[in-house]
Amino acid sequence: MKKFINGVDQVENQMIQGMVKAYPKHLRKLDCGNVVVRAKKKEGKVALISGGGSGHEPAHGGYVGEGMLDAAVAGPVFTSPTPDQILEGIKAVATDQGVLMVIKNYTGDVMNFEMAAEMAQMEGIQVKQVVVNDDVAVDGSLYTVGRRGVAGTVFVHKIAGALAERGASLDEVQAVAQKVIDHVRTMGAAIAPCTVPAAGKPGFELAEDEMEVGIGIHGEPGTHKEAMKTADEITDLLLDKILADLDYSGSQVAVMVNSSGATPLMELFIINNRVADVLKEKGISVYRTFVGEYMTSIEMEGFSISLLKLDDEMKGLLEEKADTPAWKE
Amino acid sequence: MKKFINGVDQVENQMIQGMVKAYPKHLRKLDCGNVVVRAKKKEGKVALISGGGSGHEPAHGGYVGEGMLDAAVAGPVFTSPTPDQILEGIKAVATDQGVLMVIKNYTGDVMNFEMAAEMAQMEGIQVKQVVVNDDVAVDGSLYTVGRRGVAGTVFVHKIAGALAERGASLDEVQAVAQKVIDHVRTMGAAIAPCTVPAAGKPGFELAEDEMEVGIGIHGEPGTHKEAMKTADEITDLLLDKILADLDYSGSQVAVMVNSSGATPLMELFIINNRVADVLKEKGISVYRTFVGEYMTSIEMEGFSISLLKLDDEMKGLLEEKADTPAWKE
Repeated sequence: MKKFINGVDQVENQMIQGMVKAYPKHLRKLDCGNVVVRAKKKEGKVALISGGGSGHEPAHGGYVGEGMLDAAVAGPVFTSPTPDQILEGIKAVATDQGVLMVIKNYTGDVMNFEMAAEMAQMEGIQVKQVVVNDDVAVDGSLYTVGRRGVAGTVFVHKIAGALAERGASLDEVQAVAQKVIDHVRTMGAAIAPCTVPAAGKPGFELAEDEMEVGIGIHGEPGTHKEAMKTADEITDLLLDKILADLDYSGSQVAVMVNSSGATPLMELFIINNRVADVLKEKGISVYRTFVGEYMTSIEMEGFSISLLKLDDEMKGLLEEKADTPAWKE
Repeated sequence: MKKFINGVDQVENQMIQGMVKAYPKHLRKLDCGNVVVRAKKKEGKVALISGGGSGHEPAHGGYVGEGMLDAAVAGPVFTSPTPDQILEGIKAVATDQGVLMVIKNYTGDVMNFEMAAEMAQMEGIQVKQVVVNDDVAVDGSLYTVGRRGVAGTVFVHKIAGALAERGASLDEVQAVAQKVIDHVRTMGAAIAPCTVPAAGKPGFELAEDEMEVGIGIHGEPGTHKEAMKTADEITDLLLDKILADLDYSGSQVAVMVNSSGATPLMELFIINNRVADVLKEKGISVYRTFVGEYMTSIEMEGFSISLLKLDDEMKGLLEEKADTPAWKE
């Protein structure tokens, strides 16, 4: 394992320290652990908190800031943060308007965030939640019952975050977050694995001519392995499954072509070239496109495509000002 | 070679198409080839043009837009664009205020950009240039006489672009671009190579415990190979050389920790953690930090550190509004 690290037991902490040192105007780290909050707490609004295992950078610390999250809680690589840690995050950002937790659908995350919410409620903090499950590849996987939460989560951060910033109520922010979840679908593929530092070896293996279709963001198995295809063919494979899952006909969409970490922008743009052509052909109008690293899997070589079916409310919130390390409007 | 492409002869064109389709409000592709210009030409200002071989995305097309470049010319992967192609770019964006070319110091780039400038001048267009040579690793390399131009180029785009947007003269914009060049130093290291699609195999080889110190952005040799070290040790190695090359004492700097393409943000932040600590220790104040993919080498696994010694003019221009696909303020 060749990585730019100082020791497998220091990875998460030094990463969070390095992130906060890069963006001191945006971020502050709590003393109690790997919890990142806005440098300056904003009162009088619903607080948004998200998080999960590390290894998905810039998710979620990179989305903390004006117009998006108030806190991000980072567990060890690919491992849920503890309820205690999440509770510290909730307490640090809670306002009299309450807290919305944006949870990706993994059994550990859901359990630990819910436990933290119960503890917070016992301390008089109002907490609600949404669970993101945008991955159409498989129902149930290594760490999940039901569909997994993947890159579509970032659209939830952006749109619910914008509504919270406007001063909407907890019920309203929860409702728009759920609306995004109901209208976003994602699927990915990978051609090379990543190595969790503490494990020291790749999480899975693929032959030289093989890819994993429907891969999860921790390298969990997808629908199947098959022989490598062209970028256009792979894109079509993923789009077919996404478009079959939700009726996008005649709609406007936000597109996200997300890198799993090691996939160069060159290839992401080649993929987007096909995405744009296919959507145009099908009469689906592209309102905005996002290409880059949004929800990664350390240095996995792969990508995912997310399509969010927009309405006027979501369009407006997507365009609203955001000022975070990883998302600026 | 496993890549998300459709054929080695379609890489550059489909990449540029996919980039323009992702950002139609920012970018337009010229019909004559892989030249990207602002979607809406701005008159009455000095036009900035840059470019070079493809494979460094988001450089340079990602920096076309308000407050940065007016045009980016993309050659084949790691190969200079032709003088004809550069001329088309110049002609498309030239205004009565003239054109500034920002060239990275590679023999082919310098020759072809200068040839294009001569042709443009024969057509009555005023063209000046700066040559970026920020890489302190080596003097002369595979494709270069003198120092190579690497990630520091992006600071030139940002700062000279901001001054051009304000309406400064060609001489003034050239002067500030040269000031950035005079005050920025960069050095990198890599632990795994990239594969140029048309070559089909990695550009160099490294043993499992080996790294290349001072690597170039085309995988050209650096100062030496040595055994893999910790992130902190590698960071110190690069910083030592950078800090020995220019007197940064007591100054304010902009820091860029740039990914060569496949290096995960996790590792870049661990590196930045060390950069921030070392600079603090040395009494060098960090004004702004940029961590991410700015000047890549396809999917090379490596990074570079750039330090720009700032004055008040450069600070102001760095903060000025930019709206491009890859850089927003």
